[in-house]
Amino acid sequence: MTLSVYLSGEIHTDWREEIITGCRAAGLDVTFSAPVTDHAASDDCGVAIMGAEPSKFWHDHKGAKLNAIRTRHALAAADVVVVRFGEKYKQWNAAFDAGQAAALGKSLIVMHGADHQHALKEVDAAALAVVETPEQIVQILRYVMSGQLPG
Amino acid sequence: MTLSVYLSGEIHTDWREEIITGCRAAGLDVTFSAPVTDHAASDDCGVAIMGAEPSKFWHDHKGAKLNAIRTRHALAAADVVVVRFGEKYKQWNAAFDAGQAAALGKSLIVMHGADHQHALKEVDAAALAVVETPEQIVQILRYVMSGQLPG
Amino acid sequence: MTLSVYLSGEIHTDWREEIITGCRAAGLDVTFSAPVTDHAASDDCGVAIMGAEPSKFWHDHKGAKLNAIRTRHALAAADVVVVRFGEKYKQWNAAFDAGQAAALGKSLIVMHGADHQHALKEVDAAALAVVETPEQIVQILRYVMSGQLPG
Amino acid sequence: MTLSVYLSGEIHTDWREEIITGCRAAGLDVTFSAPVTDHAASDDCGVAIMGAEPSKFWHDHKGAKLNAIRTRHALAAADVVVVRFGEKYKQWNAAFDAGQAAALGKSLIVMHGADHQHALKEVDAAALAVVETPEQIVQILRYVMSGQLPG
Amino acid sequence: MTLSVYLSGEIHTDWREEIITGCRAAGLDVTFSAPVTDHAASDDCGVAIMGAEPSKFWHDHKGAKLNAIRTRHALAAADVVVVRFGEKYKQWNAAFDAGQAAALGKSLIVMHGADHQHALKEVDAAALAVVETPEQIVQILRYVMSGQLPG
Amino acid sequence: MTLSVYLSGEIHTDWREEIITGCRAAGLDVTFSAPVTDHAASDDCGVAIMGAEPSKFWHDHKGAKLNAIRTRHALAAADVVVVRFGEKYKQWNAAFDAGQAAALGKSLIVMHGADHQHALKEVDAAALAVVETPEQIVQILRYVMSGQLPG
Amino acid sequence: MTLSVYLSGEIHTDWREEIITGCRAAGLDVTFSAPVTDHAASDDCGVAIMGAEPSKFWHDHKGAKLNAIRTRHALAAADVVVVRFGEKYKQWNAAFDAGQAAALGKSLIVMHGADHQHALKEVDAAALAVVETPEQIVQILRYVMSGQLPG
Amino acid sequence: MTLSVYLSGEIHTDWREEIITGCRAAGLDVTFSAPVTDHAASDDCGVAIMGAEPSKFWHDHKGAKLNAIRTRHALAAADVVVVRFGEKYKQWNAAFDAGQAAALGKSLIVMHGADHQHALKEVDAAALAVVETPEQIVQILRYVMSGQLPG
Repeated sequence: MTLSVYLSGEIHTDWREEIITGCRAAGLDVTFSAPVTDHAASDDCGVAIMGAEPSKFWHDHKGAKLNAIRTRHALAAADVVVVRFGEKYKQWNAAFDAGQAAALGKSLIVMHGADHQHALKEVDAAALAVVETPEQIVQILRYVMSGQLPG
Repeated sequence: MTLSVYLSGEIHTDWREEIITGCRAAGLDVTFSAPVTDHAASDDCGVAIMGAEPSKFWHDHKGAKLNAIRTRHALAAADVVVVRFGEKYKQWNAAFDAGQAAALGKSLIVMHGADHQHALKEVDAAALAVVETPEQIVQILRYVMSGQLPG
Repeated sequence: MTLSVYLSGEIHTDWREEIITGCRAAGLDVTFSAPVTDHAASDDCGVAIMGAEPSKFWHDHKGAKLNAIRTRHALAAADVVVVRFGEKYKQWNAAFDAGQAAALGKSLIVMHGADHQHALKEVDAAALAVVETPEQIVQILRYVMSGQLPG
Repeated sequence: MTLSVYLSGEIHTDWREEIITGCRAAGLDVTFSAPVTDHAASDDCGVAIMGAEPSKFWHDHKGAKLNAIRTRHALAAADVVVVRFGEKYKQWNAAFDAGQAAALGKSLIVMHGADHQHALKEVDAAALAVVETPEQIVQILRYVMSGQLPG
Repeated sequence: MTLSVYLSGEIHTDWREEIITGCRAAGLDVTFSAPVTDHAASDDCGVAIMGAEPSKFWHDHKGAKLNAIRTRHALAAADVVVVRFGEKYKQWNAAFDAGQAAALGKSLIVMHGADHQHALKEVDAAALAVVETPEQIVQILRYVMSGQLPG
Repeated sequence: MTLSVYLSGEIHTDWREEIITGCRAAGLDVTFSAPVTDHAASDDCGVAIMGAEPSKFWHDHKGAKLNAIRTRHALAAADVVVVRFGEKYKQWNAAFDAGQAAALGKSLIVMHGADHQHALKEVDAAALAVVETPEQIVQILRYVMSGQLPG
Repeated sequence: MTLSVYLSGEIHTDWREEIITGCRAAGLDVTFSAPVTDHAASDDCGVAIMGAEPSKFWHDHKGAKLNAIRTRHALAAADVVVVRFGEKYKQWNAAFDAGQAAALGKSLIVMHGADHQHALKEVDAAALAVVETPEQIVQILRYVMSGQLPG
Repeated sequence: MTLSVYLSGEIHTDWREEIITGCRAAGLDVTFSAPVTDHAASDDCGVAIMGAEPSKFWHDHKGAKLNAIRTRHALAAADVVVVRFGEKYKQWNAAFDAGQAAALGKSLIVMHGADHQHALKEVDAAALAVVETPEQIVQILRYVMSGQLPG
């Protein structure tokens, strides 16, 4: 069994690497995708390629659309979409990805700390699993793919 | 021409009434839908009907799923989805609704203040219009339905 | 707000009438559909119209397909699918309807007694609400449509 | 010709192995998938990974949703869905899988003993084949893929 | 309960009128659609409106495409598609309509005499009912809509 | 029989009125939709409502997206899409609408003069009818809806 | 460029081999599928595997459904569907396959002699090519895949 | 990460080769498809294979449909659709492809010179990027696939 997993959301910690490393260690045949996690590149890609914009709105607009080419492809190709909400920032793009995943019928897994529980209740309600740590994601993928439980 | 418009997002100001009143005044044939905007009812509906839960997570879970019956129906029936982001709170459910609307191919209009511009760039990039005031929504709906511009 | 609700499952008690009466009393604009609840007619419709079959399998087959014309139409037209599991019988057609509803993205509500909880866990996990009584269904529909909670 | 076949339903006998062995012996290029067939792991996976629940309902709920990640993926990837109903238990999840398979337009094959014929008539009516033994499944897959009949 | 029924196939006898009259007499709320049943108009509509063609192929091509505007609309709008195969002619357009109906997931009812049984086995296998007379169609629609059996 | 018809393309002559008047005269139950045909309003709607843009590209971009709210709704609601190519201008939006109509499976009718025949061959090849005059459109709609031929 | 081509219809001449051989000779990367072309096996497969039926209708019904497992898979996987109508028999299954292909949006190519032109006009009107010989099919596939014309 | 990119539109300059060469040089794993770019072959393919037509309309019609087999396949298989509008000709087929791409939810990139900006505003508004040079396309694909910006 193979799975394609899109790792969406927070880009300031190394949670993606923890999951990828954990799945490799468990011998799971998973293909991972992710947004561009270089914050500066992600913000400026549009104007860097298609020319500067005096307005911040259009600066961001051009970049967000380039990033959407990658994001939409990753979402469409994914069997499972993991969305992580970190401690800081608005992270509306994470919730936006979760909404797209839900509407596309993807299996959604949400990762966040207990302090965000109430604010994320609508997102959690659309998920097949809600967890706090990358290790739990690895355990879920191992169970789903091989039937093996931790411990 | 008739339109069905879902008014998603912030529930603490009367922006929905402004839009509805404005469209009525303009003589537009629009059907509006919205989430339950009574905050307390929306939070507690699950346990009020299906029994108390000692855990806050499941308390919220039961309620969020009941609200999803209404939300999904409104989204599916809508031609246009308006999502408003207010000044306060995380508002992840608003971004989640926007994501669903985008994935379902609905015409998306986003309303927010200038201070949220950067954080909402991915959502704005999926929208057909980004505005700041309910009056602009009324103007857009009037133009779309009748071809009339303001002034 | 109007809703179309398909009432699937158990046909030996008057739970459908309780829901319909309750919704009428609450002034809700709901359209209900249901399978043919006359057990004998439902079993024999195929051979009654298209000719007798010596084999029980084909006798049942002809009837089940006629009933599927009604069921599929009701499922396709429904916004909400309520599936009730009673105390007796295998009721595989109820679970089959629930599976179709889930795959079609319908809002699913499951009604059953506590003794069936474990056996129905996969069906419940796909539902937006799990209840025990028709009165709860009425309360849910009233809340979804009007935002009003019981009491 | 290659086929992807999901083997759903009863998990207490070795019918899946009989089919897999038979297809291998016949040299058929079939990819098989199945739910987790370790009953205890399947029941407890949710709490084992995501933490204990005092309520049996939520204990089961967490597990059923994890299993749904696997099941949905298997259903979506399958060309043919085989659902076996055994002698015992309610087996509502088997009928639920059959309903999903039917709604997704998958080719459905149902396997059960003669005593369940009447109770399964709606499920059988949606199937392209109804059989009693794993050997018949192998014969069907061999015929479908190579045109060869038994004997 | 209302149904939309498309009456496809043979255009040389008055079977459509029998069904429509029968349903009216039974008080059923059915909307019927049909192809243009004036054979000459149906053959020549293309050239009559869009100009003569020296080649019979293009003469027919232009007409068949105009008729497809009507047929596709009727198929898309139908809940139930009835296809009648008469005694004479190739009637490939009837089988073509049946194929479209099957692929679109419509409830298909096939009507034909016993002599065509073997030649129509693939079409019959995709149908939810196979009958010989218009009266049986009326009985099916009455049962499906009201639960009433004949006699 | 009722039809919903979207009249796309050239906005400088009164071809839409000819079709609408002709269908009214013929007593046909057709609902028509169209883009905003006031050229200046259509060009400037975006900046008029959402604020001026120094760049022509974004000026046009804002307007084109507002117009897309109307166009997408009209396309989605249409049974038949008529696209007229006039004598002048690039008219890429007309071909763009035709492409959308084709991909959405709408019945497409193209209207243009003989001089555009070769340049429009790909669009014509996706159409169910290719005509030169509004009168032919009326004749087609009358035939499709009533079976009546001209003359 | 690779293509998947389903060769449907007439099973009494070797037209499939001509096409396959011709494409091989032209070095085209095409994957072909076809129904079971052993007439006796195709007729009797159902009863051979699932038990005899005294009624010819159910004998054929069981077989037609087994064949549908193969046919539906081939249609779903195909980029191009070629349907050949031979000189003899009713061949309603060929027209039924063509209807399914059209509704699924597959590229349809129809092959038949001139004498069937009028009777097949609706099927031809849904096709992207209408030809008379297997050689023309090879020429079309070569042109589509490589841009090379014959001669 | 791999991408499938369809290069639609203008066929008189070597822009496709520039993009393909640039992506190869950047080590990107992209699969490219394109229409037949031999103008004469593209115009005459229909009659060359299926026989001459005295009418230019049908001559073109036969050819356009053959080309549609290739185009539809390329569009359906593409993750990204690039449409280039050159300096000359009507290029309605380019806009038609863009419309299909938009309706199919493909990521659309449009390439054209500044002089076509106003005429292409509806097409540009549906795109995720609007550029002027093949080099920018390469830079976009490199960024989307690897996160690397130019320079």
